[in-house]
Amino acid sequence: MRVIFDEELKAVADDLDRMVQDVRKAINGAGNALLNSDLEAAQAVIDGDIEIDALESSVIDQCVKLLAKQNPVATDLRVVVSTLRLAATFERMGDLARHIAETARRTYPQSPLTDDAKQLFTEMQEFLTMTADRMVAMLQDRNTAIAEQVIVDDDKLDALHQKTFDLMLSDEWQGTKQQLIDLVLLGRYMERLGDHAVSAARRVVFIVSGFDPSKEPSRDEDGSVY
Amino acid sequence: MRVIFDEELKAVADDLDRMVQDVRKAINGAGNALLNSDLEAAQAVIDGDIEIDALESSVIDQCVKLLAKQNPVATDLRVVVSTLRLAATFERMGDLARHIAETARRTYPQSPLTDDAKQLFTEMQEFLTMTADRMVAMLQDRNTAIAEQVIVDDDKLDALHQKTFDLMLSDEWQGTKQQLIDLVLLGRYMERLGDHAVSAARRVVFIVSGFDPSKEPSRDEDGSVY
Repeated sequence: MRVIFDEELKAVADDLDRMVQDVRKAINGAGNALLNSDLEAAQAVIDGDIEIDALESSVIDQCVKLLAKQNPVATDLRVVVSTLRLAATFERMGDLARHIAETARRTYPQSPLTDDAKQLFTEMQEFLTMTADRMVAMLQDRNTAIAEQVIVDDDKLDALHQKTFDLMLSDEWQGTKQQLIDLVLLGRYMERLGDHAVSAARRVVFIVSGFDPSKEPSRDEDGSVY
Repeated sequence: MRVIFDEELKAVADDLDRMVQDVRKAINGAGNALLNSDLEAAQAVIDGDIEIDALESSVIDQCVKLLAKQNPVATDLRVVVSTLRLAATFERMGDLARHIAETARRTYPQSPLTDDAKQLFTEMQEFLTMTADRMVAMLQDRNTAIAEQVIVDDDKLDALHQKTFDLMLSDEWQGTKQQLIDLVLLGRYMERLGDHAVSAARRVVFIVSGFDPSKEPSRDEDGSVY
C-alpha cells in the first residue's frame, strides 16, 4: 500500500513540476512580450495559460483521489495539502503572466511602457526571471535555502514597484493617461507575481520543516503607501 | 466514528461561516470608508483583517486534522477540500477590502475618488454589498441557486469596472495623476473581490453537486481590454 501511495505522490509531484516550469516559461514570455514588443511571445503566453489551468485540475483530481483512497499521515498529508495550495498559486501566476502578455498584445507594435519606465520594468522583470528559476529549483529539490531567499528578497521587488509610482507622480512624467493606467496595472501584476512566489516558497518550507507558514503574516504589504 | 466526524465537520463549517461574515463586514466597512470618508470604518477593516487571517489558519488546521484522523470519503472529502479553498478565497477577500480601506485612510479627510467617479464606485460598492449578502446566504444553506446568481451576475461588476476606465480616459476627466492611480487600483481591488466571490460560488456548487467547477474557465477575464 505504501509503495503505491509514494508512486502516486510522485505522479502529482511531476505534474506540479510541469506547472512550475510552465509558469517560468509564462513569466519569461510575458517579460519578452512587454520589454521587446514580441507579439509571438505574448500569444504563446496567452495560449499556454490553458495548459497551466488543465494541470491545476489534474493536480487537484489526483490529490483528492489520494486523500480518498488512502489515508496519508504526517508528512504525506502535509505534502498533499500543500500541493493543492501550490497548484492554486501557480494557476494564479499563469493568469498574471497572461494579463501582462495581453497588455503587450493590445498596444503592439507599440510598447505599453514609456521610455523612462523601461529601465524600472526591466529590473522588475529581471527579478521575476530570477525568482522563476528559484521556484523551479526549490520545488525540484525541496530546497528551503532557496525558498528562504525568495521570501527575503521580495522586498527588492516591492521597492522597484514603489519606484514606478514615484516615476508616474514626478514632474518628469510625460506619458498619456492610457500609459499611466497600463503602468499601474502592469506594476501590480508583477508585484503580485512576487507575492505568489513568496507564498509558494512558504509552502515549500512547510513541506520540509512542518512549520506552518500560514502562521506568519502572509498579507501583501509592501510598505508602499498604495 | 461517523458522528465525531460530522461534529468536527460542523466546527469547521462554523469557522467558515464566521469567516464569510467577517468578509461581509470588511466589504461593507471598506465601502463606507471609501464612499463616506469614514476613518473609523477604515481602521476597523484594517485591524479586523488579522481575525480573518487567524480564522483561515484555524480552518486549515482543522481540515488537516480531519484528513489525518479519519478517512473522509465522497461528499465529506469534497467538503473538506473545498473548505480549504474557500478559506483561502475569503482570506484574500479580506486583504482586498483592507487595501480599499488603506487607500481611504491615506487620503482622509479627502476621498480618493473624484466627484465624477463617485457614482460609478457607489454602484460597484452596491453590487459588492449585495454579493457579500449572497455569499453569506449561499454558505449557510449550501444554496446553489444563490451561488449561480453570484456567478451569472459578475458580468455587471465587470461592466461597471470597464466604465471606470472609460471615465478616466475621457476628455472630461479632471483628476490628478494620484487620483488616477488610486482609481485604477481601487477598481482592480473591487473587480477582484467579485472574481473571488465567483470562485467561492463555484465551490459551493461543487460541494452540493459534485460537479467540479475547476473544469470551467475560472480565469479573471472581464471582456475589458485591460
